[in-house]
Amino acid sequence: MRNASFSAVNRRAISARRLRDLLRAEILRNDHPQGTMPSETELAARHGVSRNTVREALALLRREGLVDRVQGVGTFVVRHKTPHQFDQVQSWRGGGVHHEVLAMEPVPAGALVAAALGAEEGDPVLLLERRTMLEATPLALWTTYLPEDVGQRLQEPGVDLSGDFYDMLEGALGTHVAGVQSTTEAVLSDGDVALLLGVPESWPLLLVERTVVDVSGRVVEFGFGRLRGDRVSLKSWRGRRETRSCPVPRAVAG
Amino acid sequence: MRNASFSAVNRRAISARRLRDLLRAEILRNDHPQGTMPSETELAARHGVSRNTVREALALLRREGLVDRVQGVGTFVVRHKTPHQFDQVQSWRGGGVHHEVLAMEPVPAGALVAAALGAEEGDPVLLLERRTMLEATPLALWTTYLPEDVGQRLQEPGVDLSGDFYDMLEGALGTHVAGVQSTTEAVLSDGDVALLLGVPESWPLLLVERTVVDVSGRVVEFGFGRLRGDRVSLKSWRGRRETRSCPVPRAVAG
Repeated sequence: MRNASFSAVNRRAISARRLRDLLRAEILRNDHPQGTMPSETELAARHGVSRNTVREALALLRREGLVDRVQGVGTFVVRHKTPHQFDQVQSWRGGGVHHEVLAMEPVPAGALVAAALGAEEGDPVLLLERRTMLEATPLALWTTYLPEDVGQRLQEPGVDLSGDFYDMLEGALGTHVAGVQSTTEAVLSDGDVALLLGVPESWPLLLVERTVVDVSGRVVEFGFGRLRGDRVSLKSWRGRRETRSCPVPRAVAG
Repeated sequence: MRNASFSAVNRRAISARRLRDLLRAEILRNDHPQGTMPSETELAARHGVSRNTVREALALLRREGLVDRVQGVGTFVVRHKTPHQFDQVQSWRGGGVHHEVLAMEPVPAGALVAAALGAEEGDPVLLLERRTMLEATPLALWTTYLPEDVGQRLQEPGVDLSGDFYDMLEGALGTHVAGVQSTTEAVLSDGDVALLLGVPESWPLLLVERTVVDVSGRVVEFGFGRLRGDRVSLKSWRGRRETRSCPVPRAVAG
């Protein structure tokens, strides 16, 4: 299968794939707010392709779970994604989003966590496991580690862990978060991740490793989040020539 | 399955998942450069968990395709990811990465592409389809649309489309790229995407929609990239309180 070129691909498949991308972008933009897609005939005319190509593109969207088709009635948008502004560091805000604490317990730091947090191996750190919910629907599962003193402040009575995580962290720290170094991957759900996120096994997920740094350059959180691919999209702006105005702290550079 | 809580999850499954995250982060950091993972006994001692938990974590990693186990010999890292610096706008550089042009042809702009590029519906735009290769391995497939004049300059003789895309674009434009607005999702491979990326169907992919803006605020490219989840990770730094120093151009804000 390696190195297949266009010669190996059906011409209609190529057109269907291109149309699928355009239609799914429209769906994500909420261009079909009533939830009904235009008819096959209309889509074919509008995009200058055959009805067979439209049918194939809609089949790809249905397979992805973004639309459903009712024979003789039409095609409906069945799922929207929650866009998350990824430019600025913040938790999801508003719209029924809250965080459930699944676990909060001191654990000894392994080598990786110790190195990330600037602690010694075996030092106690706080393991924090949270689930981001959109009303009753899980959006994300976070397993993170915080330095002992930060963790202790988070465990004090009156600290609300269900709202904006960074506001809460800054309140507990008494300092500002400078930013987050993150690595984003695409993976499949498996094991208890599938169970906790309410998705089948082998469901697409965004896996985000993140290192949160405060303005003094100290790492105040390190860990992993798994975000449901069918429910979340990450929006961000990247500049091309702004290295000097948006410096990466030395703590996470390199 | 919805709203399962920890009570529904086996305690060992939770520990195995947490250990899996730490081990996969070590693999991505290349902490096991010889490609051999420590023994189960060593991993159990190092992480303070049972050998059964280690076995379950390694099984999750194997299922993900990051390690392989040889009975009686050990566990080996079989796949590394290519990290892509996502902070600054650039193509992959060095290390045998190049771009293959799969298609380059004028097409009439549909409503979405016309709106994105600031063109009229039906205006000719350039469809550009490229595949990012790491030597003989496909990393990503890009289907993008460029304004007609930009497209014409890219098609002039002597323009090398196989190297850094943004350098090439700036050379052709005679202006600088200001940045890129992108939306990142996790999806599964299907249809000819799987064929062209050399992966099975239902393989995890990063789907990136991007809008490239030059320093005058003009959109000079709009389109979609699919990046192999097993091969690519996106690294980026996000600031928390730097809105003023890293402004998002009006063309893509909101």
